[in-house]
Amino acid sequence: MHDAKNAAERIRNFIAGQVVLSGRGGVVIGISGGIDSAVVADLCVRVLQKSRVRALLMPYGQQPLGDSKLVCKHLGIKYHTIQIQGAVDDLAKWTSSFEKVPLGNIQARVRMTVEYAFANLNNLLVVGTTNRSELLTGYFTKYGDGGCDFEPIAHLYKTEVWKLAEYLHLPKKIIMKQPSADLWDGQRDEDELGLPYKKLDKILDFLIIKEDIASLDYYYHHPDTPVKTLHISEEEIKHVIRMMINARHKLKMPPKLPRINA
Amino acid sequence: MHDAKNAAERIRNFIAGQVVLSGRGGVVIGISGGIDSAVVADLCVRVLQKSRVRALLMPYGQQPLGDSKLVCKHLGIKYHTIQIQGAVDDLAKWTSSFEKVPLGNIQARVRMTVEYAFANLNNLLVVGTTNRSELLTGYFTKYGDGGCDFEPIAHLYKTEVWKLAEYLHLPKKIIMKQPSADLWDGQRDEDELGLPYKKLDKILDFLIIKEDIASLDYYYHHPDTPVKTLHISEEEIKHVIRMMINARHKLKMPPKLPRINA
Repeated sequence: MHDAKNAAERIRNFIAGQVVLSGRGGVVIGISGGIDSAVVADLCVRVLQKSRVRALLMPYGQQPLGDSKLVCKHLGIKYHTIQIQGAVDDLAKWTSSFEKVPLGNIQARVRMTVEYAFANLNNLLVVGTTNRSELLTGYFTKYGDGGCDFEPIAHLYKTEVWKLAEYLHLPKKIIMKQPSADLWDGQRDEDELGLPYKKLDKILDFLIIKEDIASLDYYYHHPDTPVKTLHISEEEIKHVIRMMINARHKLKMPPKLPRINA
Repeated sequence: MHDAKNAAERIRNFIAGQVVLSGRGGVVIGISGGIDSAVVADLCVRVLQKSRVRALLMPYGQQPLGDSKLVCKHLGIKYHTIQIQGAVDDLAKWTSSFEKVPLGNIQARVRMTVEYAFANLNNLLVVGTTNRSELLTGYFTKYGDGGCDFEPIAHLYKTEVWKLAEYLHLPKKIIMKQPSADLWDGQRDEDELGLPYKKLDKILDFLIIKEDIASLDYYYHHPDTPVKTLHISEEEIKHVIRMMINARHKLKMPPKLPRINA
C-alpha cells in the first residue's frame, strides 16, 4: 500500500459498488472492538449513509464490550447487542466441544449465523473484515468469520490495515491494542501465528509472487533465498509456508468433479 | 450422465482422493432422509470403511427421523442424533427470525456448525450433498448446507441423482419420496423452485453451455430458441434464468479487491 488516501478511496468505491449491485439497502457488520472491523465500518460509514451501516455486538457471555462501543460511538452509528452464549453452549454441549479451538470455531460460526439472520430481516449485505495476513495463513474460521458477502480489506496485510487506521484517525486505543481473535481469554494473534505481523507480512509478500503450490513447495525445500533476502530464520519461513499450504482449502469453493463425462 | 456405474466409480475415487489429500480419518455427513445425502453416504461407505463414515441426524424439534434411520440401517452405519432446536430458537429469538425462510436459514447454518464441531473433534472432513440443480439455481443456504469441505454430487442434476440412487439400490421409499429441504412443514422443492426437476434440469442443461452472465442475459431477452428447442414456456425459462442470476454470489468466494496498486 503506497498511499492510504488512495487505498481508502478504492475500498469505499468497492463497498458502494457491492451494495448497489446487490440491490440491498446497506450492510451489517460485526464489531469486535479490534482494528479490522473498525476500519471496515469506518469506510462503510464514509460511503453509505450512517443509517445503512448496522453494527452488531455479539458477546459470548461476559465478554467486555467497551472497545466495540467506543468504535460505534466514534463512528456515530447505532448498534444491536446479541448474546451468543445460549446457542454456543447448547451446541458445545451436544458436540462435546469444550476445548478452546472447537469452542472458538462454534462462536465464529454462530456469529456468522446471527449476521445473516439480521441481514435477511433487514435486506442487508454481510460485510467481512478478514485481512490479507489472516486470509493467506488461514487464520480465520471457514464459514465463520470467513463467511460473508464481500471482503473490503482482504487485499491488505495487517501492517497496512494499521496504516489505514491511522489515516482514518480511528481511536488510538483501538489502533494500539494487541491483536486478538478474542475467542478465549488471553488469546493473542501473534502467539498463535507464531511470529509478529511485521515479520509475517514480509514473508508473505516475498512468497506470494509465485502463489502456486509448486513454488511454496520449492521454497519449503530451498529456503535460502528468503532467509538471505529477508534476514528471517529458516524455521520461521518454513512455518509460514506450512500455514499457507494448510490454508488453501479455506480460500476456494468446495471442490467438485468436472461435468465432462459425467 | 450416460452410465450410472461409471458415474459411481468416478465419485468414489473423488471421495477417496479428498480424504487422502486432507490427511483426515474419514467423513461426517448429515443424513436428512432425502435422496441426496443417501446417495453421498452410500458412495462414501462403498469406498471408505464403514467406521470412517459418521452420520449425523440433526432434527429441529420433533422432526421425524424414520427415513434418516432407514438410510443408516440400509448402509449399516451408526449415527449420532443432535437436537438443534435449543440453539436455533435462541438465535431466532435474538434476531426476530420467526418467519419460515429466515428460520430455515438459521437451521441450515446451525447444522453446518454442528457438522464442523463434530469433524473438529473426530478429525473428519465435512462432506456436502448439494446437487447441480440446487447449485445452479442457488437452492441452498450460503454457508449452511452449502458449507462443506467437498461436494461429491454437485456435478449431477437431481434427475441424474435419481438414476444413481436406483443403480445403488437405495430403499424405494427414499427414492420415491417428494424432494424437500424439510426446513418447514409441507415444504416441497418443486413448489419453491416453481417447476418440476425434470423440466428444470432440461432448461439448466440448455443454458449452461454458455455459463457467463452475458448469455444468460441474452437468453432472458431472447427466449425463443430455448422455448422452441425444449417446448417449455417462455415464463418458465425466464424464471430459471432469474434464479441462476440471483444464485451467482453463492457460487464463488466473497469478492475482494485485486492487490495491484493496493
